[in-house]
Amino acid sequence: MNQLQQLADRIISRVNVNLDEFGFDTETFVSHALDHEKMLKFYAFYGITSHHPIYFHFRNSNIAGSYFLGKCYVGRSAIYKSDVRGDELKRKGDNIRCAKDIPLVEDEVITIRDSLLYKTLVHSNSHNPESPEEFGIRNTISSHYVNIHGSTLEGCFLGPFATVDLMNLHSCIVGEFSYVQVGELFHRKIDPGTVWIRSQNFEFKFKFDTQALDHFVGVNDQHQPRGIMYDFVKEREESYEKLFDVMNLEPYQAPDTSAVNRYAVILGKTRIGNNVLVAQRAFLENAVMGDGSNAQENTFIVNSRLAGMCITAHGGKIIHADVGQGCFVGFNAFLNGSETARIDLGKGCVVMPHTIIDPQGPVRIPDDHLVWGLIRTQEDVKTHTIALDDLAEVRDRLTIGKMTFTGKGSVFIEAFKNRLHHILLLNGALYKEGEKRGHAQDDQHISFNIIQPYRTGEREGLYPSIRIKP
Amino acid sequence: MNQLQQLADRIISRVNVNLDEFGFDTETFVSHALDHEKMLKFYAFYGITSHHPIYFHFRNSNIAGSYFLGKCYVGRSAIYKSDVRGDELKRKGDNIRCAKDIPLVEDEVITIRDSLLYKTLVHSNSHNPESPEEFGIRNTISSHYVNIHGSTLEGCFLGPFATVDLMNLHSCIVGEFSYVQVGELFHRKIDPGTVWIRSQNFEFKFKFDTQALDHFVGVNDQHQPRGIMYDFVKEREESYEKLFDVMNLEPYQAPDTSAVNRYAVILGKTRIGNNVLVAQRAFLENAVMGDGSNAQENTFIVNSRLAGMCITAHGGKIIHADVGQGCFVGFNAFLNGSETARIDLGKGCVVMPHTIIDPQGPVRIPDDHLVWGLIRTQEDVKTHTIALDDLAEVRDRLTIGKMTFTGKGSVFIEAFKNRLHHILLLNGALYKEGEKRGHAQDDQHISFNIIQPYRTGEREGLYPSIRIKP
Repeated sequence: MNQLQQLADRIISRVNVNLDEFGFDTETFVSHALDHEKMLKFYAFYGITSHHPIYFHFRNSNIAGSYFLGKCYVGRSAIYKSDVRGDELKRKGDNIRCAKDIPLVEDEVITIRDSLLYKTLVHSNSHNPESPEEFGIRNTISSHYVNIHGSTLEGCFLGPFATVDLMNLHSCIVGEFSYVQVGELFHRKIDPGTVWIRSQNFEFKFKFDTQALDHFVGVNDQHQPRGIMYDFVKEREESYEKLFDVMNLEPYQAPDTSAVNRYAVILGKTRIGNNVLVAQRAFLENAVMGDGSNAQENTFIVNSRLAGMCITAHGGKIIHADVGQGCFVGFNAFLNGSETARIDLGKGCVVMPHTIIDPQGPVRIPDDHLVWGLIRTQEDVKTHTIALDDLAEVRDRLTIGKMTFTGKGSVFIEAFKNRLHHILLLNGALYKEGEKRGHAQDDQHISFNIIQPYRTGEREGLYPSIRIKP
Repeated sequence: MNQLQQLADRIISRVNVNLDEFGFDTETFVSHALDHEKMLKFYAFYGITSHHPIYFHFRNSNIAGSYFLGKCYVGRSAIYKSDVRGDELKRKGDNIRCAKDIPLVEDEVITIRDSLLYKTLVHSNSHNPESPEEFGIRNTISSHYVNIHGSTLEGCFLGPFATVDLMNLHSCIVGEFSYVQVGELFHRKIDPGTVWIRSQNFEFKFKFDTQALDHFVGVNDQHQPRGIMYDFVKEREESYEKLFDVMNLEPYQAPDTSAVNRYAVILGKTRIGNNVLVAQRAFLENAVMGDGSNAQENTFIVNSRLAGMCITAHGGKIIHADVGQGCFVGFNAFLNGSETARIDLGKGCVVMPHTIIDPQGPVRIPDDHLVWGLIRTQEDVKTHTIALDDLAEVRDRLTIGKMTFTGKGSVFIEAFKNRLHHILLLNGALYKEGEKRGHAQDDQHISFNIIQPYRTGEREGLYPSIRIKP
């Protein structure tokens, strides 16, 4: 048996052992996801910059089509067309905020072992006080377009388009299109389409109707994704693959203060403002990016205008929409407008992660509203949004349609606003006269190093052991 | 001062100290050769195959445009558009043949420290009994199109188009277009255009007339090359640079038993036979490569036909020529034919390294002849060739024109033929039915990994520290 197959088998057995209690067998997923031919076809790459700490170490793995930045270790894993961005990891001397601050004795490193990440994004820093120097992903399988955001994972399976945010998960299954940000979870199975945020002071919960969700994101018998959201992404995949064929691309014309990654797809009449970050694997077509706006990994901005200071979080999709000043469009949100059914998002709106807007006619969201769930008509807007000012008044509990909020609305809003400010800051949206540099300024001069696997012999498909230090 | 400049300054001072006795200052060469902008422009690359041992380690260096294969260490050096091929290094357990055999306790590694190699070829294994596991190049500067062939170097300066073959050199200056293969040299200055082979049993010596040579290869005040040989090469440089712009090239159509490196330039009506090796940085235009023939690094084969089993050693240039079966065209030989002055090289000829044929009309070299020096007319052929059979009769001394041979001709011929057989074997020219694999078969499935320097910051132009193991 070849070593690629051995690698896949080892991952399956490692993850299965953790998910035994659920009777979940990962074999069908893995064997259908991993195409050995494609694992030989695409090169992997990593970024060299003077602005990010550098440490890359790859061993006994296939990392085809994947991108790495910052400090990353990968051992005995398959990382396929994924982004592992360690540029916001904590550094030596930083503190993890717990009951008592825990100072880091070394720089934090993303370490991925015995895992399969498929078209997955891994980003930002983790908050696991048990291993502050290690953002660890172990014995875990993540499927198509998962966001692993600041989350450590052990023995988990994450379904397509799932997001785990600032979490520590142990032996969990997270269903497709679920978003969880609830601190720590052990041995839990999260239903598909769950949007669940829980902190000390508040809790937000929404669950998609299973049948309705299935139209957008579902899985087949092999746990492979299907549905119109997946189709939308898949249809555009070829555009990315073309970017791998050319070595030196003429950089896309953008202001000096903005970064357009050379692995982003830019089509049609697209305009990039100042302090704009367009990350690798972003897809822009006839897009207007206002000053300070960003398009993170796996985002799609098509026939749409973003006013200034808009955040499009990883996997956010904005199609035929006008997005007002200072809006936030969360992870994997799907704003699926069309020519005859344009989406008009007022300024200062917060579109919750994993929100779907799929309008049958034009839809308008008023300014400064929180938006969640599934919106198809203007009527739906009433039951799936709330003015932030009204939410701020909530002191105990609020139920609107299938959404439940518990806790103080003002605390929730405050926490969200702080986070958005932090995101804008890190992404360089607030850059001015040499101050407040962020990714938009620092990512302009990335050198991409390209690595490839053995093409023949016993180790065919595996990458040689590579270690890079400054 | 930036770190690239510091690197250059350190190399200058290290080499200067070794060449103090000659009053030779390398600064003008280095400052004119190293263009910091170009050192940022071209990526470096290394080959991953299952057929060659793998170890790469790069530290505190700029290696722009250079290629590495096999086992190589580079520290505190500038390696610009050079080829460092460690695929024929000795392995652990192999013996260095001396008075007493010296077995290697580790695989041999090419180690380059505090040196500048400029468009240089480093290849084959060294024979320095003092450090059998290390093919060491230290405190050394090599200029344009130098061949460092199985030679360890310490404190040397090698002029443009010089070749050092199976040597150990200490504090030497080798003039432009000189070829030396004389075992060991200390504190010597070799005049430009010296062709000098010396072994226990024979010695071959030829020296170009300085003025005549200057027309082909000379140097200016900055020790930079000039002359028509350099112009010929320089005019074609752009074709190579284009190969760096594309990531995945459609492989050139060649028989299964042949390897055409994706960093070779192939133009016009070129035909590749079986068991043919075309190495990176070879340039073929309207070339016919007969079965078992090869074109090594920096060779040019233009409007020419090579019959079978022809060897074009590193830097050999064959223009408007017909090369007979089993010919050897040595390092940096310049067969500069033209449409009206074609070169007809009989079968079984040995064109000595650093031979120039620059005919004014058609020139014919008879079969099985040794060829050297500078040939411009059919008349010159008489004084610059000898039938191998006649040479075999020489028992003591032979002088023809400016060439002197001392020793037994038969031993010289025997040694040469053994070496040619060895070269054909290693290059896969003798491959048949799965037996006698060589580079032509093993180099077909090389993966190229691409590495780039820091583009900004303190370390701008330096490459990160990279270590690759199997």
